[in-house]
Amino acid sequence: MRIGIDIMGGDFAPDANVAGAYLALKDLPEDCRIVFIGDEEIARKQIAGLGEDPDKVDFVHAPEVITMSDHPTRALPKKPNSSIAVGFELLATKQIDAFASTGNTGAMLVGSIYKINAIPGVIRPCITSTLPKLTGGESILLDVGANADCKPDVLYQFAILGSLYMKHVNGIENPRVGLLNIGEEPEKGNLLTTTTHKLLQESDDLNFVGNIEGRDLFTDRADVIVCDGFTGNVVLKTAEGFYSLLRKRGVEDEYFDRFNYENYGGTPILGVNGTVVIGHGISNDVAVKNMILHTANVVGSDLSKKIKEAFK
Amino acid sequence: MRIGIDIMGGDFAPDANVAGAYLALKDLPEDCRIVFIGDEEIARKQIAGLGEDPDKVDFVHAPEVITMSDHPTRALPKKPNSSIAVGFELLATKQIDAFASTGNTGAMLVGSIYKINAIPGVIRPCITSTLPKLTGGESILLDVGANADCKPDVLYQFAILGSLYMKHVNGIENPRVGLLNIGEEPEKGNLLTTTTHKLLQESDDLNFVGNIEGRDLFTDRADVIVCDGFTGNVVLKTAEGFYSLLRKRGVEDEYFDRFNYENYGGTPILGVNGTVVIGHGISNDVAVKNMILHTANVVGSDLSKKIKEAFK
Repeated sequence: MRIGIDIMGGDFAPDANVAGAYLALKDLPEDCRIVFIGDEEIARKQIAGLGEDPDKVDFVHAPEVITMSDHPTRALPKKPNSSIAVGFELLATKQIDAFASTGNTGAMLVGSIYKINAIPGVIRPCITSTLPKLTGGESILLDVGANADCKPDVLYQFAILGSLYMKHVNGIENPRVGLLNIGEEPEKGNLLTTTTHKLLQESDDLNFVGNIEGRDLFTDRADVIVCDGFTGNVVLKTAEGFYSLLRKRGVEDEYFDRFNYENYGGTPILGVNGTVVIGHGISNDVAVKNMILHTANVVGSDLSKKIKEAFK
Repeated sequence: MRIGIDIMGGDFAPDANVAGAYLALKDLPEDCRIVFIGDEEIARKQIAGLGEDPDKVDFVHAPEVITMSDHPTRALPKKPNSSIAVGFELLATKQIDAFASTGNTGAMLVGSIYKINAIPGVIRPCITSTLPKLTGGESILLDVGANADCKPDVLYQFAILGSLYMKHVNGIENPRVGLLNIGEEPEKGNLLTTTTHKLLQESDDLNFVGNIEGRDLFTDRADVIVCDGFTGNVVLKTAEGFYSLLRKRGVEDEYFDRFNYENYGGTPILGVNGTVVIGHGISNDVAVKNMILHTANVVGSDLSKKIKEAFK
């Protein structure tokens, strides 16, 4: 397995990216090789500074950098030698099995959709966020920002994609699907959720358990929670804001520590022809390490193939 | 000033409602009279049980009860002698200056819109939620559930309504208005927020400060935060869920204690011809007390008249 990692993306690149990759190597199986995509000279300097062995990784030189302020759709054609553009090229040509980056999320989405494409049948690929349950374990929320406006059939597909993810990556046999909504009753909600509720209810392919309200996001009511990307992004950032307030207030708590993004490292883009994982822009070395380990899990689960089969 | 209080609504009625009213009486000005709307016999028994003086309040007998499971639009015509139906009748005929209830929110909304009506020019009345700022003080989020689907002109009006509320009730001279969105840049968002952003930006009647992301909800970026009722309700319940988790985990913190709904007691329905305040269904006596004190503040601010003038 070859995992490509963008060593130029994120607020603490290349330091956190290179250090995180070497941390990950300690836990990865032997047949797993990390490919550093970015400025090779900078990477080698960084490795030397850490006193690590450069022969443990591979290098693909990509001198340009897509920054956080670059426009997502314009950045890729404008910077063909950037780490993100080169990463997608390597993935499209199967020179790597997965591509992970803590860089510009928009550019990662654009690359996923235009360089490796959506899986046939998938209307809109999406991104997920992991929510820690109070009772232990995790659920996923999707979409959390790739699609600000969604139609009911798109939300229905998110339910399928999320279920496949929880089954094959997290090993949950028959994942429970909830619809994020503003009441428990089927008729509650906006036009999008009332219509989506019917679609989910009528489906034989899903284990739909009904509406989930904001206050139930952290309980054990569902394993997959579906919403449009606008709502999901607002919820995700509200939860991040809350977690950040807890840290600011010096609150230490075992459960709330599980809201720390470092633990999850990254989230895959679901529904595209390959494994693409996006990490948080503020990722430190531990977050990068966990992003890489998570990427290896997703590749190992053969999720992309399972999704292709489901959407045939 | 005469404040009508529904003594039959909420999970802990009539105990919490009656006890809360007598707590409020201690802090209300002398010219303020509380009117108990509900089953008079039950109310008098409750007052006797508390050892309070029944002459300190007025009674309007309303033997029927709209429960939490009653259908909002059907409940009012079906139960004309319910505390909520009678309350709106009293408000419509100016026998009371305000009506407050911890009962069925849907029925309260329906009563507001069909019994006392929206203020001419207001497309959709809405409800707000108070958010505590980390730096002290509060902002309001609106709408939080009255309107699941909104158009840009409706969101624009929420900005006006919220600004008038913060100016006249909270005494903030030139309230800053933010738009809840999924990015800071004007072009970010869904169809609704990108269009609303333009409307807010072009307005001379507002102090618009731009987009507010979920993570900034508790900072001092804005005083009025505008969103559709679906998003607002999800955010409100997510915050409630988080607060409830903190309590479950035994976390004690001065800032987070300000998330306790008891402190705010209730929220007015903005944009209707009169003062209507809704409290949380789980309100205890302290919450009811604060709901009544808040109601007196709203009546005292003459908010309804100020809104009428603004929408002329």
